[in-house]
Parts: sequence; C-alpha cells; structure tokens
Amino acid sequence: MVENSNSGNSDKTVIILAAAQKRFAHYGLLKTTMNDIAEDIGMSKASLYYYFADKETIFQDVIRKEQREFVNQIEKFLSDKVSGEELLITYVKKRLSYFQTFLNLSKLSSDSIKGIKPIFSQLFENFKHEEVTLLKKIIKNGIENGEFEKVNVTEISELFISLIQGLRSNLIIRKELENLDKKDYQILEKQFINVAKIFSKGIKK
Amino acid sequence: MVENSNSGNSDKTVIILAAAQKRFAHYGLLKTTMNDIAEDIGMSKASLYYYFADKETIFQDVIRKEQREFVNQIEKFLSDKVSGEELLITYVKKRLSYFQTFLNLSKLSSDSIKGIKPIFSQLFENFKHEEVTLLKKIIKNGIENGEFEKVNVTEISELFISLIQGLRSNLIIRKELENLDKKDYQILEKQFINVAKIFSKGIKK
Repeated sequence: MVENSNSGNSDKTVIILAAAQKRFAHYGLLKTTMNDIAEDIGMSKASLYYYFADKETIFQDVIRKEQREFVNQIEKFLSDKVSGEELLITYVKKRLSYFQTFLNLSKLSSDSIKGIKPIFSQLFENFKHEEVTLLKKIIKNGIENGEFEKVNVTEISELFISLIQGLRSNLIIRKELENLDKKDYQILEKQFINVAKIFSKGIKK
Repeated sequence: MVENSNSGNSDKTVIILAAAQKRFAHYGLLKTTMNDIAEDIGMSKASLYYYFADKETIFQDVIRKEQREFVNQIEKFLSDKVSGEELLITYVKKRLSYFQTFLNLSKLSSDSIKGIKPIFSQLFENFKHEEVTLLKKIIKNGIENGEFEKVNVTEISELFISLIQGLRSNLIIRKELENLDKKDYQILEKQFINVAKIFSKGIKK
C-alpha cells in the first residue's frame, strides 16, 4: 500500500518535499494539488502517490521539517552560555518566524484553520509538547545557574508557551489570517519580546 | 421610531432587561426570542418593540450592565490601599467571573461567536478599552507608591490585557465553548493568577 508520512529520507522524498514546499509557499495548502507537485518534478501522479497518500501528508512532512529546524535552532542556543532571559527572547523571535513560515506555507484563513484542525491536531499537539520540553530546559538551566528561583518548572513552562500561543490566538480570532500584514507581525514581535523580558524578571531569584 | 440601546432607566426597561437576563441565562442568545421575553413579563410584543429594536439590542444592554458591574467592582478595590499585585490578582479573578457570566448568558459556540462578532465588535472593543483604562490606573498606582518601576504604562497595560485575553482565546480556539467544564475554568483561573503574580514581580522596582 501507499507509504505514509515520515517515509524516510530517500532522495525522491526529499525532492518531493522541496517541490511541494515551493508550491505551498506560492499557492497555499488548499490551492495546491497532487497533480501540481507531480508536474513540478516531472513525476507521474501514480509515482507520487506511491510516496505520499495525499497532499495533506506531504504538507505535514513539510511542516514537521520546519518544526524540527525551529527546535534544532533553540537546542543550539541552549548549549551556548547565554542567560535565561536571552534564551527566552531568542525563543519568541524564532517562534514568530516559524509562525510566519507556517502561515505562508498554509495560506489558510482563520476559518479554514478550524476546518483542518482534525487533520493537524496531532501535529500541533506534538509540537506544543516539544515546545514545553524546550522551555523546561531553559527554565531548568536558569534555576541551576542561579538566575531563576525554584519555580514549578512544568507549570511555568506550560504557562509561558500558553501566553505566547495566546497572543497568536488573539490575532487568529480577531483578524483573517490571510490579511495579516507587516504591522501585525511587528506588534506581535514587540508583545512577544516584552513577555519574555517581564516573564524572566518575574521568575528571577 | 424604535428606541435604541441605552434608552435610559425607565422602570419598563429595567423590568425587560431583568427578564431577558433570566431568559438568556437559561436558553442563551440564539434560542431566546422577543416573544419569550414579552410573554415572561406579560407585555405585548408591540410594546416590547417600542423599547428595544431586537433581542440583540437587549442582549447588548444586559452585557453592558454586567461589564459596568465588573468595572465598578475593580474601581472600588482601587480606592482600597492594597498592593498592585493584589489588585492584579483581584482583577483576573473578577475578569474570569465576568467571562463565565458572558458565556452563560450567550451560550454561544466558538463558531457562532465569530458569527455574532460584527454585531458585538463595538461592545467588545469598548470593553477592552475600559479594561486597559482600569489596568493603567492599577499600574500608575503601583508606580506612584514605589511598588512598580517606571514602565510604559499604556504598553504594559495593553500587554497584560492581551495576555489574559490570549489565555481565553486559546480556549475558544481549542474547545467548543458550550462544552467548557469546571476543570477548564480551574485551569484558566490558575493561569490567570500565575500571570498576575509573575507579571507584577516582572515590573517590580
């Protein structure tokens, strides 16, 4: 049967994902078809279906790749000897970039984001879990080097992720996602950075 | 012509609003009709329409009354000599109560909340403005009595309101509002109080 998501790193898969990512970035998830992707790489539709069950599976893999890159970037900063506050600021900045990338690849409206939720809820949930894990490392680091007080690491990490998520949710509820402009992202970035600063001072020793 | 919203405090208006509030609390906005409200107070439908153009206008007035009560409660605490941190904690607790009251009166689903947005956006926007005004008073108080550092009062007040709103938005996006249970409110309350604590420490002198 059809191979499913995470089908490894065969050259073909890499080529398909790269082509699909370009398509998604131009036309979004809804307007991209399996046909488009197959044509872009001169592959028959049948061959494409051998590798991926549908465009949603391809999209999930593209997004997972972006998520992995985000996580790797933060992990890299974690090994540097920077303060918890700096880490939180880096975190929210990179998180905003990933948010923009996701919106750019999906080009979903606020309504259709609700519509696709069933398909992607696992993807989102896993990523939130990874985010909390990253935050826990940042907070633990900060406690160990005496910068942060001995807070409940899990509770505080989940709260931070929820606050950053909440600022995005406000935007998703208030505005059509396809209409977000530069100013919206600037406001969001300022909010993100302020939260990172106030939050790290708020748990300082 | 039909009198519109804010039509003063005539006895009749008070009676209508009280009856409507009970109806809304039992059946929600969508399932309540002008007929129901008229019948509840033994008034002809024609008379009811003399006072209010439609049930949405009545609902707006009921909500405005609740919003006013919330603002008055906070204003009262402001005149007490309590710390900024205590004020923020009181603020988020009362804000949660109002959120519950609003959901109870509207009984709207997450989808229908988007649907009614055009009607109520002014109501919500004005209330957010009032919230920011209240927060500015709390922060200013704290700066004056030496508890908080000299922050940008407007920016910080707007951020706090956005964070609290964001935690509600997460819930609205994730879950059907009519299915919120006691546990959801408990989690939200804990998040609210933690934000109030961390935030006030985060802007402490």
